[in-house]
Amino acid sequence: MAQKPSIPKGTRDFNPEQVAKRNYIFNTIRAAFETFGFQPIETPSFENSDTLMGKYGDEGDRLIFKILNSGDYLAKANKEAYEKRDFNKLTASISEKALRYDLTVPFARYVVQHQNEIEFPFKRYQIQPVWRADRPQKGRFREFYQCDADVVGSDSLWQEVEFIQLYDTVFSALKLEGVTIKINNRKILSGIAEVIGASDKLIDFTVALDKLDKIGEEKVKEEMLAKGISEEGISKLQPLFTLSGSFESQIESLKDILNTSEEGKKGIDELDFINKAITELGLKTAALQLDVTLARGLNYYTGAIFEVAAPKSVKMGSIGGGGRYDDLTGIFGMKNVSGVGISFGLDRIYLVLEELGLFPETVNKNVEVLFINFGDKEALFSLKAIKQLRQQGINAELYPDSAKMKKQMNHANKRNIPFVVLVGEEEINSNTYALKNMVSGEQEKVPLETLVATIKKS
Amino acid sequence: MAQKPSIPKGTRDFNPEQVAKRNYIFNTIRAAFETFGFQPIETPSFENSDTLMGKYGDEGDRLIFKILNSGDYLAKANKEAYEKRDFNKLTASISEKALRYDLTVPFARYVVQHQNEIEFPFKRYQIQPVWRADRPQKGRFREFYQCDADVVGSDSLWQEVEFIQLYDTVFSALKLEGVTIKINNRKILSGIAEVIGASDKLIDFTVALDKLDKIGEEKVKEEMLAKGISEEGISKLQPLFTLSGSFESQIESLKDILNTSEEGKKGIDELDFINKAITELGLKTAALQLDVTLARGLNYYTGAIFEVAAPKSVKMGSIGGGGRYDDLTGIFGMKNVSGVGISFGLDRIYLVLEELGLFPETVNKNVEVLFINFGDKEALFSLKAIKQLRQQGINAELYPDSAKMKKQMNHANKRNIPFVVLVGEEEINSNTYALKNMVSGEQEKVPLETLVATIKKS
Repeated sequence: MAQKPSIPKGTRDFNPEQVAKRNYIFNTIRAAFETFGFQPIETPSFENSDTLMGKYGDEGDRLIFKILNSGDYLAKANKEAYEKRDFNKLTASISEKALRYDLTVPFARYVVQHQNEIEFPFKRYQIQPVWRADRPQKGRFREFYQCDADVVGSDSLWQEVEFIQLYDTVFSALKLEGVTIKINNRKILSGIAEVIGASDKLIDFTVALDKLDKIGEEKVKEEMLAKGISEEGISKLQPLFTLSGSFESQIESLKDILNTSEEGKKGIDELDFINKAITELGLKTAALQLDVTLARGLNYYTGAIFEVAAPKSVKMGSIGGGGRYDDLTGIFGMKNVSGVGISFGLDRIYLVLEELGLFPETVNKNVEVLFINFGDKEALFSLKAIKQLRQQGINAELYPDSAKMKKQMNHANKRNIPFVVLVGEEEINSNTYALKNMVSGEQEKVPLETLVATIKKS
Repeated sequence: MAQKPSIPKGTRDFNPEQVAKRNYIFNTIRAAFETFGFQPIETPSFENSDTLMGKYGDEGDRLIFKILNSGDYLAKANKEAYEKRDFNKLTASISEKALRYDLTVPFARYVVQHQNEIEFPFKRYQIQPVWRADRPQKGRFREFYQCDADVVGSDSLWQEVEFIQLYDTVFSALKLEGVTIKINNRKILSGIAEVIGASDKLIDFTVALDKLDKIGEEKVKEEMLAKGISEEGISKLQPLFTLSGSFESQIESLKDILNTSEEGKKGIDELDFINKAITELGLKTAALQLDVTLARGLNYYTGAIFEVAAPKSVKMGSIGGGGRYDDLTGIFGMKNVSGVGISFGLDRIYLVLEELGLFPETVNKNVEVLFINFGDKEALFSLKAIKQLRQQGINAELYPDSAKMKKQMNHANKRNIPFVVLVGEEEINSNTYALKNMVSGEQEKVPLETLVATIKKS
């Protein structure tokens, strides 16, 4: 029954080193979340299909993994769809559950379902995997973790200020200096669309503007024209294309551009408030930048929009993002709950830390000492010492078989175990341990206390 | 589009307190795993169906959650099965992936797939959720975590010794005193079957014997008779039913009973070796007990069999189990790799700790201090102090809105936040903070350093 084993495309096995590195990132993010007052929740890996379907657009619906009903799932199959072989219609009748597509919709469902137990404003974080039937490519997987922090039940702008500090705290703790936290505001985008007479084309307009970095000014203008935005309107955009300089000077320019739009002015006020607070509080290593072309998830966000760019020395898409949404829980019948949140892109952060060599050397909690096994009597004597070492928090093990010494030493070498202990009859009789430093090659005979102390301080 | 939100049966949401308690158990187990030299791996949530199907028996196959293929899954549907509405045959043609059913088969798949990168003996641990379409009931869920540690590539009995110590270490660290680690050996069971002339009825025999605790001696004998085991054979079992006393005295009795079975004698030697080593090494709080009726997963285990019983004061099934298997990777074409492993039952351990009140009070990392928000100027001043507190690892937050003071104080009370800080104009001018202890009700005006120090030492 031999099979060549493999795993589904877009999924990954993680070896001990990779798990340790991922946990280093998770733990850093988690610690920061907690000092900022966020508390963890977890939701099931699969939700009822109707909780998820229709929440991410048609494309999202297609990318959601559906779970086949258990037992004779055909018994309840939609007859008409079955006869017509209409897979789209058939699905709902043979599949009632689906894998989580993101953490935001399950969070909204959680808030509504548990609203009577929750004390608002509610600051929650959630670090769990999500699944998408996307075409796998470099850095894009079918199973990946999201790390989200959100506050619901308050529309205070201090939350936006806090989230910018949170980004700065996490990336500084990861020693990832030079990230740029880009900020924009949905109201600015609406204001611009209003000013150029394209309020009805807000999405086309922002989709085009979002491409400025990639395709340049001329192409953006062409696309806008093609989408039916007037030449006159586009000419009014000119100042936007050349917007640069400090946050403050951009704010001043925007005040000119948007002076006829109430919504635009509100967006400017919000950005101004946030920027002034951040200037007062200071950031450790990140920079805050106003980017009026930033539009991510426009249909979703209603206020601030965030995106974090890796240091310029690394080619990588955004490593984080988020924003304010004013009616997330509305989809589950709970109105007027404003929320704001951010997310960290674990896989991309991993790639950036790897590329820049920023993982600490100690991240991989390797075994610190291997006891060579010379036979049962020696093994038992060794295990007594190993027990003491473990009680001191030292990762220690006995080679399980009394194999040839060379084989055992090779094992220690291949696993980069820094210390080896050799216990023979002589050591047992004198109640000592021959401790070998595998890096320096030095070997000394020591009592148990010295053994523990030496390994502990190494 | 309002919906009453709910989650699929057999799944759970975890609130912050539950997540914190679960993480306390996970972290305790993880720390012990690591001091014992185990290293973490992670595998994908779903595997190719043919990796899982056929590995857990027919019942297992039915309980595996299958994932519907993406896109037009009917295009590749088995025509004959579709026409005949044969759901069993149809499944394989419309579903290529399935959710992990346990951690053992994915581990075997991992070892075979990565055999060239692995240095054997390989000690790995894995803490991940698994999914089973079981009928949900108290303590049984459709999504639950397994915590497994296994060694592959060595048949040394020192591993069994180590695993018993590992169980003792974990339960002692959890302050769960009085657990019983039951041990048996598949070779003992085979030996007994041989001696009573029922080698061909090994499974029937052990299934019946396994029920001794529940249905008593007479019913067990009746069941054996019904399964075709001879009266004479059953009479030879008599000493087994009365087997009691210390590990050593049971071993002596078994030597009499099994003196004609080579395999039985081998099983006795193994148990004797393990017991003597454990006696020498000592256990902190657990007891090791020989239980010849223990048979769990017989088809699977080939040597030692473990099961951990909660303290007698708690009614609960086993809270851990494991054993040695000699050909796990054989199902994927890699022969002669002996393995031994144990598992911890997270959900049941949780229930036991809850019932006995063993979760530490500090397990829930609550917010330690809430700053009352009296307006933007005060909020900004507060955030400067909050930043300092967080850098000291203190979980601190600002109430986001300048709501009525009573509302804010209520919020602190409801969330059991132990300290509240009030910053008004006077405090800003004097650069101090009014620190209120929510338990004692005491309030004092202090400079920042005192604020930090007071909260830190609380």
